[in-house]
Amino acid sequence: MNLILLHPRELTGQHVTLTGRRAEHIRKILRATAGDTLRVGMLGGLLGTGCIREMAGNTVVLEVHLATEPPPLPPTDLILAVPRPIMLKRVLAQAVSMGISRIFLVNANRVEKSFFSSTLIQSNDFTESLCLGLEQAIDTRLPEISVHPRFRPFVEDLLPELLRDCPIRLLAHPEGDRTMAQAARGLSAQRAVLAIGPEGGWVDFEVHRFKEQGFMPFSLGARILRVDTAVPALLGQLSLLRRLD
Amino acid sequence: MNLILLHPRELTGQHVTLTGRRAEHIRKILRATAGDTLRVGMLGGLLGTGCIREMAGNTVVLEVHLATEPPPLPPTDLILAVPRPIMLKRVLAQAVSMGISRIFLVNANRVEKSFFSSTLIQSNDFTESLCLGLEQAIDTRLPEISVHPRFRPFVEDLLPELLRDCPIRLLAHPEGDRTMAQAARGLSAQRAVLAIGPEGGWVDFEVHRFKEQGFMPFSLGARILRVDTAVPALLGQLSLLRRLD
Repeated sequence: MNLILLHPRELTGQHVTLTGRRAEHIRKILRATAGDTLRVGMLGGLLGTGCIREMAGNTVVLEVHLATEPPPLPPTDLILAVPRPIMLKRVLAQAVSMGISRIFLVNANRVEKSFFSSTLIQSNDFTESLCLGLEQAIDTRLPEISVHPRFRPFVEDLLPELLRDCPIRLLAHPEGDRTMAQAARGLSAQRAVLAIGPEGGWVDFEVHRFKEQGFMPFSLGARILRVDTAVPALLGQLSLLRRLD
Repeated sequence: MNLILLHPRELTGQHVTLTGRRAEHIRKILRATAGDTLRVGMLGGLLGTGCIREMAGNTVVLEVHLATEPPPLPPTDLILAVPRPIMLKRVLAQAVSMGISRIFLVNANRVEKSFFSSTLIQSNDFTESLCLGLEQAIDTRLPEISVHPRFRPFVEDLLPELLRDCPIRLLAHPEGDRTMAQAARGLSAQRAVLAIGPEGGWVDFEVHRFKEQGFMPFSLGARILRVDTAVPALLGQLSLLRRLD
């Protein structure tokens, strides 16, 4: 937790009273005391500082001053075939920590049915994992996130509109030996979307539907990676390509 | 587990008798039966197939045919400040799945003392995590791995010899705004080493020692990443740079 993330409804004037996980972090990990100044951020808003005004029992009272914009969010979207819930939580935090605008969680042929009917997916509330990513990366902006239980209507009916302003469309798929650099020519600061399949990959039907929507298949190489390795590896590559001379 | 990894000592003629985790995987996840052929690999050796000759109780007997070399290992080394044990296990598996030649686990100022005295580090046996990475990526070659409890002798006395044939030396450090592409000019197929610090980063003393050994600092950007996000992101970038046109 590199940032104490606050919710707008928690603020009373310039003060916020914390209990639970954040208060415990301040006391036990940061070992902060009254008068200390901590880095805080308002969910969806500015970064700033929180000066500890009171500590009693499990409670910490901060006086909050918000001042600066969080770091720029790369114009990158992620289409992710739903992995098992424990992995999904981790991958969401990873993606958010690296900076992501929108996350589309989709069904696919090789997604296990049980993953899609998990409590996490059914609740449609990913705030906890997303906030872990924000707290890690010192950011305040949650990505948009949506769940799409039916693959074909998502790709054929929704994607054309969702990706209207997104010229770079990348499909992680071990077909051919095109690299991401070759698939993402002209990337620079343009909006890009990256589609990452389930363990075992996309099936042919899915690959064809993506190609019809202008997605370019590329491969990371012969090695099969777990999704919590593939997602940061691919977002890392995209980030590097955006910053190439 | 995309590969049933065998140990040379397990082979009797062309047969191997599996129990435990691998046998359970074959029965419960792969749902394989007698006569089925599975992908196997010999630790440190060739990939091939294993035909199920017998299944009884928890035991699976395979007839093994080894035939092909595993995928090439990139000439990449990793210097990693020791993270907490649960994270270390995960990161080792991630790094191995992406392909790594040598891993140097080092102490650093901001490494918590308790991490370095963990059972995992003290045992000096990382085979389990490393094998998880090999099974994931369909590889058989364990990286060399070594533990260095004292930072300065490692960097000053050991590194010059260890990195004799390693012209590309990269230090992940948020100093300046050089990207990995700028720090790794001329990379191509040359040996490269990547040094990744603890949470909170390398301290100035450590940065200076690395620079004296020819390491070039570069930054992933303003975002602070957990080590299980940073390691795949950075190895992904290095892999992309090796394959740039």
